[in-house]
Amino acid sequence: MGSALAEVLRDRGFEVITTLTGRSPRSTEYCERSGVAARKCLADVVSQADVIISTVTPDAAVAVASQVRREAARLDASLIYVDANSVSPQTIGRIADEFQDSNIQFVDAAIHGLASRLKTQGTIFASGSAAGVVSELFGTDVRVRILGGEPGNASLMKMTLGGMSKGIIGLFLQSSLLAQHVGMADEFCDELGHYYPDVLNFVERSLPTFGQHAARRAAEMRELEASLSVAGLPTGMAVELSRLFSALNESDMAAVCGRGVQPMSLKKLIELLSESRLSVITDRLAATVV
Amino acid sequence: MGSALAEVLRDRGFEVITTLTGRSPRSTEYCERSGVAARKCLADVVSQADVIISTVTPDAAVAVASQVRREAARLDASLIYVDANSVSPQTIGRIADEFQDSNIQFVDAAIHGLASRLKTQGTIFASGSAAGVVSELFGTDVRVRILGGEPGNASLMKMTLGGMSKGIIGLFLQSSLLAQHVGMADEFCDELGHYYPDVLNFVERSLPTFGQHAARRAAEMRELEASLSVAGLPTGMAVELSRLFSALNESDMAAVCGRGVQPMSLKKLIELLSESRLSVITDRLAATVV
Repeated sequence: MGSALAEVLRDRGFEVITTLTGRSPRSTEYCERSGVAARKCLADVVSQADVIISTVTPDAAVAVASQVRREAARLDASLIYVDANSVSPQTIGRIADEFQDSNIQFVDAAIHGLASRLKTQGTIFASGSAAGVVSELFGTDVRVRILGGEPGNASLMKMTLGGMSKGIIGLFLQSSLLAQHVGMADEFCDELGHYYPDVLNFVERSLPTFGQHAARRAAEMRELEASLSVAGLPTGMAVELSRLFSALNESDMAAVCGRGVQPMSLKKLIELLSESRLSVITDRLAATVV
Repeated sequence: MGSALAEVLRDRGFEVITTLTGRSPRSTEYCERSGVAARKCLADVVSQADVIISTVTPDAAVAVASQVRREAARLDASLIYVDANSVSPQTIGRIADEFQDSNIQFVDAAIHGLASRLKTQGTIFASGSAAGVVSELFGTDVRVRILGGEPGNASLMKMTLGGMSKGIIGLFLQSSLLAQHVGMADEFCDELGHYYPDVLNFVERSLPTFGQHAARRAAEMRELEASLSVAGLPTGMAVELSRLFSALNESDMAAVCGRGVQPMSLKKLIELLSESRLSVITDRLAATVV
């Protein structure tokens, strides 16, 4: 996602810099490809940038924020820090606390949609008192929605939308596999398309590569569960979705989809899941229940 | 649903008869309103009709089929029996067994959609060797889909579609209540409408009267659970949906919606659920989990 954001910003005339210290070779490659200038260390980035956008793995989000705060304090730099990571509102709360009483203005940002479709179908949600900077940066090249002054709102919006979209994948697996059991998966997809064309389009677009993302989706559902629990709301569906995606991640589906050699048709995918590969999912879920 | 079907058939020139023995006063009223001629007893219907369509409460479906078989045997009548009730494929299997070695041809039919929108948005699924009779009866006035020779296929199709549509209601409750918790229910609905207009339309149409149907929806989810279980598929989501709808049925929502005085906006409904009424749902679910 970092390079997709960088490309839009560069095209809009902004200078985009980063540091590759501690980043993966893949990050280096993305960085070169999208024409982002690399700085020697984080201190250089902190001293030169007006806005820092963090796009790291969710488990590194708090550590990176903390490191930026320390460097900024040491250099007496003031800047806007935008966390654009897929983290829960609770984690955003911890990052917001990190920046209290500092020269850094904190923006919670959350990106809904795939990096490859950022400009056409993505939305950047942003909240926090300085959230307007996201509109300034991306203009109308990416859809931006400002969600008030509270950090956490943007992440929660992404989470609630994710609860729908990933939940729909779970419901589709449930119903299509039951239909396939009596040889009616095609007819089921036809009817779904008749009543909810949006839903079928989304499933056709998402499910064939879902195996690659299943572990991350399971983690997202666990974060949803935690947020529901904090709000005193029923968590059962999020728990079940997390279990289903974990099982999917451990099934052959992940390996088959992971190869990514060619996109798989929905029909083929339901067949694969319904044959030998399904038993892995079913066994694993049965084991979880016991 | 019976009177909606009867009206279409009468408009298409068929003579429609029924018996009101053992039926509710509401059935009598519907019958008169839709111009259906009442016969003294079931034996009269069996002896005069070419096709019998059963539209009763799900728990009466098997008993009615059995009664028709006995009367037909006694009168040596041959006819086509169409079960159009909301029952599981397993129950259809029992009814199909009932008619084995009889003069009655059995059709499994299942109607997707509301009675009030039968002609514009409903679909009648039909399966079994004589399923074609449903196309003959309804022509193009109602959308008919024939799903092969196996009784049970039509009911299973309705069940899998129901797994999606009722599941979407469950997912919507989960996400919208979480969004409402931080005062963002409206923004959540806007975004849902942006990404999935079909889904938002469906929720706006269905949820305000969902309380009236919650007990029936919970029962449908239990039947889905049973079918998933028979197919060796994960049942967790169906279980959670059934719990959620049972809780909804016992909440004030059922009473509020049940009055049906005026249709409620989605916004108002989310507010009601999110305030005092929600605690009933949450408490009840917590109790179920403990």
